[in-house]
Amino acid sequence: MSNTLTTLTEDVTLAVWARAIGPSELQAMLSAASRPGIISFALGLPAPELFPRDALLRAAASVLADDMRSLQYGPPSSLLKRQIVGLMEQRGVACHERQVFLTAGAQQGMNLLARLLLEPGGEVLVEEMIYPGFQQVIEPYRPNLLTVRTDSATGMGISAVESILGRGLRPAFIYAMSCGHNPLSVSLSLWKRKRLAELAREYRIPIIEDDAYGFLYYAESSVPPIKAFDDQWVYYVGSFSKTLAPGMRTGWIVAPEALISKLSIVKEASDIDTTTFSQRTIAAFLEMEDFNAHLAALRLEYRKRRDTMLHSLRDNFPPEAQWKVPGTGVFIWVELPGEVNAAALLKSAIEEERVAFIPGGAFSVNRNHQGASCLRLNFSNSSPDLIEEGIKRLSRAISRL
Amino acid sequence: MSNTLTTLTEDVTLAVWARAIGPSELQAMLSAASRPGIISFALGLPAPELFPRDALLRAAASVLADDMRSLQYGPPSSLLKRQIVGLMEQRGVACHERQVFLTAGAQQGMNLLARLLLEPGGEVLVEEMIYPGFQQVIEPYRPNLLTVRTDSATGMGISAVESILGRGLRPAFIYAMSCGHNPLSVSLSLWKRKRLAELAREYRIPIIEDDAYGFLYYAESSVPPIKAFDDQWVYYVGSFSKTLAPGMRTGWIVAPEALISKLSIVKEASDIDTTTFSQRTIAAFLEMEDFNAHLAALRLEYRKRRDTMLHSLRDNFPPEAQWKVPGTGVFIWVELPGEVNAAALLKSAIEEERVAFIPGGAFSVNRNHQGASCLRLNFSNSSPDLIEEGIKRLSRAISRL
Repeated sequence: MSNTLTTLTEDVTLAVWARAIGPSELQAMLSAASRPGIISFALGLPAPELFPRDALLRAAASVLADDMRSLQYGPPSSLLKRQIVGLMEQRGVACHERQVFLTAGAQQGMNLLARLLLEPGGEVLVEEMIYPGFQQVIEPYRPNLLTVRTDSATGMGISAVESILGRGLRPAFIYAMSCGHNPLSVSLSLWKRKRLAELAREYRIPIIEDDAYGFLYYAESSVPPIKAFDDQWVYYVGSFSKTLAPGMRTGWIVAPEALISKLSIVKEASDIDTTTFSQRTIAAFLEMEDFNAHLAALRLEYRKRRDTMLHSLRDNFPPEAQWKVPGTGVFIWVELPGEVNAAALLKSAIEEERVAFIPGGAFSVNRNHQGASCLRLNFSNSSPDLIEEGIKRLSRAISRL
Repeated sequence: MSNTLTTLTEDVTLAVWARAIGPSELQAMLSAASRPGIISFALGLPAPELFPRDALLRAAASVLADDMRSLQYGPPSSLLKRQIVGLMEQRGVACHERQVFLTAGAQQGMNLLARLLLEPGGEVLVEEMIYPGFQQVIEPYRPNLLTVRTDSATGMGISAVESILGRGLRPAFIYAMSCGHNPLSVSLSLWKRKRLAELAREYRIPIIEDDAYGFLYYAESSVPPIKAFDDQWVYYVGSFSKTLAPGMRTGWIVAPEALISKLSIVKEASDIDTTTFSQRTIAAFLEMEDFNAHLAALRLEYRKRRDTMLHSLRDNFPPEAQWKVPGTGVFIWVELPGEVNAAALLKSAIEEERVAFIPGGAFSVNRNHQGASCLRLNFSNSSPDLIEEGIKRLSRAISRL
């Protein structure tokens, strides 16, 4: 394959940014972790046994029976947009159907927003450790990254944001993940959410708020996203991928109404429509079923898996290892002593113990050694039994270091 | 709305290319033509009554029953890729599963290819009249367009292409639509297909071949696409949108194997996966049903609609109007005398006669007056009765000019 790639690079002239790209670390993980017998804590996959397959089939049957336009090109589903307004209300965000824009998942939502906001070579304000999929979104623009640290208890360093903006720098936008931070699993403090919204208003810099995991909270109630504190400058990105099924590829943006027509244009240019059949099937599902009961069952099971992993970590991991209890999302972030090389650990963990995770370095935007001794562990995609077994295996791999 | 947009532009700093964009002419048409009582020849919509809804529901039920991963993130369906290899073979193209890349329709296929190949401000070689969706794909790059004329009998002006390349210009790629040209409905001659493939090889310039309509041919057999004459330099873009259902959002690219891993990366960054549920439902449909029989029925009905429109045009349109019989695709391109303003005609056609089409000027890449007296008429989305009635209405609108 590397031979063929060399040939390609010699032959076709690719855009400069695209010449160096190769399969992402996540893709390599996906392939390694999908081998039979491997217990994988690597990816942020939901539990497929919890997908409401029967109910989705009933919903699909009803839209196919009722309306031949369920398979046609067409305007975004008004019913689904109204239902999303209701879901946002549950998260403490008041919005109107006209502010809701449907996308092929959260990843596309971020992509369309970046396309509207970012110039080639432009500036973006991000944390030092972020979701690699967002790095992929902005990579073609070869942006200049303004970075801030993340506090392990309260999230994104807001005084650093303030200092950057105070120095006169004007990034195209700030990328923030207030709930279920990927990979650090920290929750942005309520005070910081409010302050970040204020800074966005004050400096007129939009925030792209990635709330892919926001509905997966494990306390009695959820903390409102940043969007709840500013209607104009926060562009909220949500998704059904983690709460219903990623294979439907449906998510949404909540943004000021004036931005929606611009989003329609970049969306049409990207892929015309969000899968009409998915939109309508999800809308019918939300009409016919009790989505809140489904969410409650999902939270209960994921909380059980989280607690199983926390107990297993406490019982098996070395005493120097540190982690916090995630209140939202599907990851636990484990810090091992600084001398540990998590990338090397992954290799031996897969080869000798048949267990996988993502080494922290994969999330560093600066490609320095940040997070090099850390592990991101997913708990949503393994049964409690497999979680216990996998953490034991991982502990053995660590003890052999 | 224009007030709000002004406010937006004052407030948020959008990327330069995005500041001027507004709803596309096609979007405005979609909205006007969807009013009740309007007979619309405007958009390239397939006939929804021909969607195989029952068979697709059986296919969906089987994938949901058999495999919970049908709703999960996951690698592209190998089965569907193998089936596409078979479909390509029917079009005279020999390829391997490893050269097939699944996309959310042809639009996304062109988008991902442009993202890999085109630099901001780069050069692209196109015909003077093309599918506006392709103009939208390249617009964010603010490209320099090298244009060639299209012969109404044999298609793209190949000697002009040769002259451009001979002068030393090296566009990032050539965009070509060899079958069922949108909007001109001409078929590229066999000789020109071969010659274009030779030029691509000789000058090492890739061709993006948009074959969205290639399976909708009305002769006994189809002419092979340009891809059949070069395996290395032609990137073929295909789709199930016109042959099965656009609401599934599934299409494909056939490209050299070395390009596929790069495509995987831009795809992952765009929207992670092509809707897994759609991929698997289509694959199950192709396993369970006789797709060739479905295609044959589709061609028979569309050929009937095409012939109905041709007869109605002959019986009703003024003798100065000119058109050719399209051998492939879903459009008839009608040239009215040069003094006719098709955009003004559309206004009166909708308001006074309740019939819609797309004025030719919407397809001109140079935004000069090319095609200003021409109409693009779709025949796939109206029953033969409505086609006869719609052409009569349109003739009345023309006679009042």
